[in-house]
Amino acid sequence: MPLLTLTSDIGSPDYLVGAVKAQLLHLNPDFQIIDISHNIPPFNYPQAAYVCQSAIKNFPDFTYHLILVNLFEKKPEQLLLAFHNNQYLICADNGLLTMILEETPEIVIGIPLEKTAIKNTTYISSIMGKIVNQLVNGESIKSIGQSDVTYLEKRHLRPVLDNNSIEGQIIFIDSFENVIVNITREQFEEQRKGRSFRIVFTRNEVIDRISESYADVADGEKLALFNSAGYLEIAINKGNAAGLFGLRGFSEKARQGQLSYQTIKVYFE
Amino acid sequence: MPLLTLTSDIGSPDYLVGAVKAQLLHLNPDFQIIDISHNIPPFNYPQAAYVCQSAIKNFPDFTYHLILVNLFEKKPEQLLLAFHNNQYLICADNGLLTMILEETPEIVIGIPLEKTAIKNTTYISSIMGKIVNQLVNGESIKSIGQSDVTYLEKRHLRPVLDNNSIEGQIIFIDSFENVIVNITREQFEEQRKGRSFRIVFTRNEVIDRISESYADVADGEKLALFNSAGYLEIAINKGNAAGLFGLRGFSEKARQGQLSYQTIKVYFE
Amino acid sequence: MPLLTLTSDIGSPDYLVGAVKAQLLHLNPDFQIIDISHNIPPFNYPQAAYVCQSAIKNFPDFTYHLILVNLFEKKPEQLLLAFHNNQYLICADNGLLTMILEETPEIVIGIPLEKTAIKNTTYISSIMGKIVNQLVNGESIKSIGQSDVTYLEKRHLRPVLDNNSIEGQIIFIDSFENVIVNITREQFEEQRKGRSFRIVFTRNEVIDRISESYADVADGEKLALFNSAGYLEIAINKGNAAGLFGLRGFSEKARQGQLSYQTIKVYFE
Repeated sequence: MPLLTLTSDIGSPDYLVGAVKAQLLHLNPDFQIIDISHNIPPFNYPQAAYVCQSAIKNFPDFTYHLILVNLFEKKPEQLLLAFHNNQYLICADNGLLTMILEETPEIVIGIPLEKTAIKNTTYISSIMGKIVNQLVNGESIKSIGQSDVTYLEKRHLRPVLDNNSIEGQIIFIDSFENVIVNITREQFEEQRKGRSFRIVFTRNEVIDRISESYADVADGEKLALFNSAGYLEIAINKGNAAGLFGLRGFSEKARQGQLSYQTIKVYFE
Repeated sequence: MPLLTLTSDIGSPDYLVGAVKAQLLHLNPDFQIIDISHNIPPFNYPQAAYVCQSAIKNFPDFTYHLILVNLFEKKPEQLLLAFHNNQYLICADNGLLTMILEETPEIVIGIPLEKTAIKNTTYISSIMGKIVNQLVNGESIKSIGQSDVTYLEKRHLRPVLDNNSIEGQIIFIDSFENVIVNITREQFEEQRKGRSFRIVFTRNEVIDRISESYADVADGEKLALFNSAGYLEIAINKGNAAGLFGLRGFSEKARQGQLSYQTIKVYFE
Repeated sequence: MPLLTLTSDIGSPDYLVGAVKAQLLHLNPDFQIIDISHNIPPFNYPQAAYVCQSAIKNFPDFTYHLILVNLFEKKPEQLLLAFHNNQYLICADNGLLTMILEETPEIVIGIPLEKTAIKNTTYISSIMGKIVNQLVNGESIKSIGQSDVTYLEKRHLRPVLDNNSIEGQIIFIDSFENVIVNITREQFEEQRKGRSFRIVFTRNEVIDRISESYADVADGEKLALFNSAGYLEIAINKGNAAGLFGLRGFSEKARQGQLSYQTIKVYFE
């Protein structure tokens, strides 16, 4: 049973997630389909990249990841099929691929879409399913499309580094209102060079150590840790950090009349 | 593996979607269950019909569609089992069936519920599962219930037609705040008879051509296209049409103190 | 195919539900995973217990229920594996187990977590998956961990009883804004002793009979019934009881400046 994942911005009340699965099962009733999320906020590339990247690395090798996010950023002319770290990714040519991988994929293939076809979500998902079937049937990845393809590359939001600080952007706020920042443990330690540090946000909130677990601090106290995905997280033990500190995602609009912050700065000294 | 779909108004935080699947897997561990949506808004028949209709036509022939929407519109005395265009539908006798199909089903069977049973959601889902099992085991559809059944028929919200215009109602607003109107491409072309047209909404917004893709217009510009489901859609490229134009679904209440529109009119000239 | 269920407070936009499933399928591609809900509100133990309890009892015997709720209530040192009424439950040592079961489990085993491991959600889900695999492979439950384990026991919110009344707490509000109260049919009948009764809420709303179905009363009228899960439910036929009567869950915060009630009282006379 080929293992496929789906990530999209379709949303739960729509019929389209069901229609996409129908298209796929039509092509191959043996597809085993796992939903990552269908609640990627519209046009929020940093969050889409964070969700896809963090989910994908947990899957068994040779899983097929279908990413139906911002399919219509531009007029769809081709799909991209990438193979990287033993995972297959299929997505639109909208820049998201390199944001997810944070490096140039080992292999990228362009799959041209028929000029005359109506390129809506169900059509695109059926093309994605056909690509998976070709791979499952043993076709070589390079025979499926164009290997010298030109495609849109966007870079993941990157923290701003200097010798004595890192400024990170908020890429996700989870259901507990924990705040995820685009600073990985590796970046943090590399920049830190063993020095002490202060994580500063919302004017004058300061955290000066990394916890291992929420319960390392008392109820209602703030803390910082590195989450399952390896990213810096600001939280309040049994509280809601984003709401309390006025923090919001880098791509999200501020609510009217509400002061809020989208970055977090770490000082090394 | 018999393929079943589930559509309901249960909502994601509830235990009932899990309980329904448990009932079904109890009856037949080989059922392959695909969720269409469990977020149909309460009592919103037009949206339920749109979601079911648009999803169902993508599925392989002989899929079983279990529709747990407005189960308790009236005291449940029977379930309906329909076979139409090679799809099986099982739902309550609440009028939704004919709204989904938009025509008289090829076959409709009434499945009487036991008078003394407590007719809650888990009970009804177990009866639905038993019906599927009977069909899977080769029983003829007409032997499963009453074929001369009387049942409630409601009609899908229909656009209002005259020689020179169509007035459509908004049946769904998607996660991008794109606005879906109950005018199909076929109805549009049939009424249009090759004439030019103006799509008019929110007092004085006008669109006079059909796009193929959102990116056919500049960012922030409005457009109209026919979506995956074949319905007219009003959108803003990389924007949120419903919010910006004050459009809302035909069955949804207005927010207090907020002016909003639920119809869209096309003039042919 | 071993049948597993997942219940969590992760929320739908996060990558973690996908990552948890990836961990599990990595360990055993034959796991059949059913989602109960990933929308348990943060720290809402009564609702988590209601959802788990009500879902679990519908599943076939020997289903494995993985409960990823409030995993970090305290520093995770062990997981709990319970066997009760022919169901397996695996959850954190945070008190939820006895709230779900409402009695002492037949068997509880403590599974110590490695001291040096980083105990995040994906790590914990992989340990849960390994426990299931051990059971699937025929290891005896008592050989998997410590059987004389000390663990946190919390009690489900219980209605307050006296001879002539029961006061219940609101444990869940469903998508229709029906209001579920922690009074079971059994408790109600046992306390009632055949007497007549008045269900009183929101100052002076009174219901004096139990309906079988919403449609037992006219549209817009209030009613009480026992739901699929066996709990008392206050509803309005085709209306929204919680909003109209100002009722909210016992663990939910009041909205600012809004009067609301969290209990319901039954008088017997």
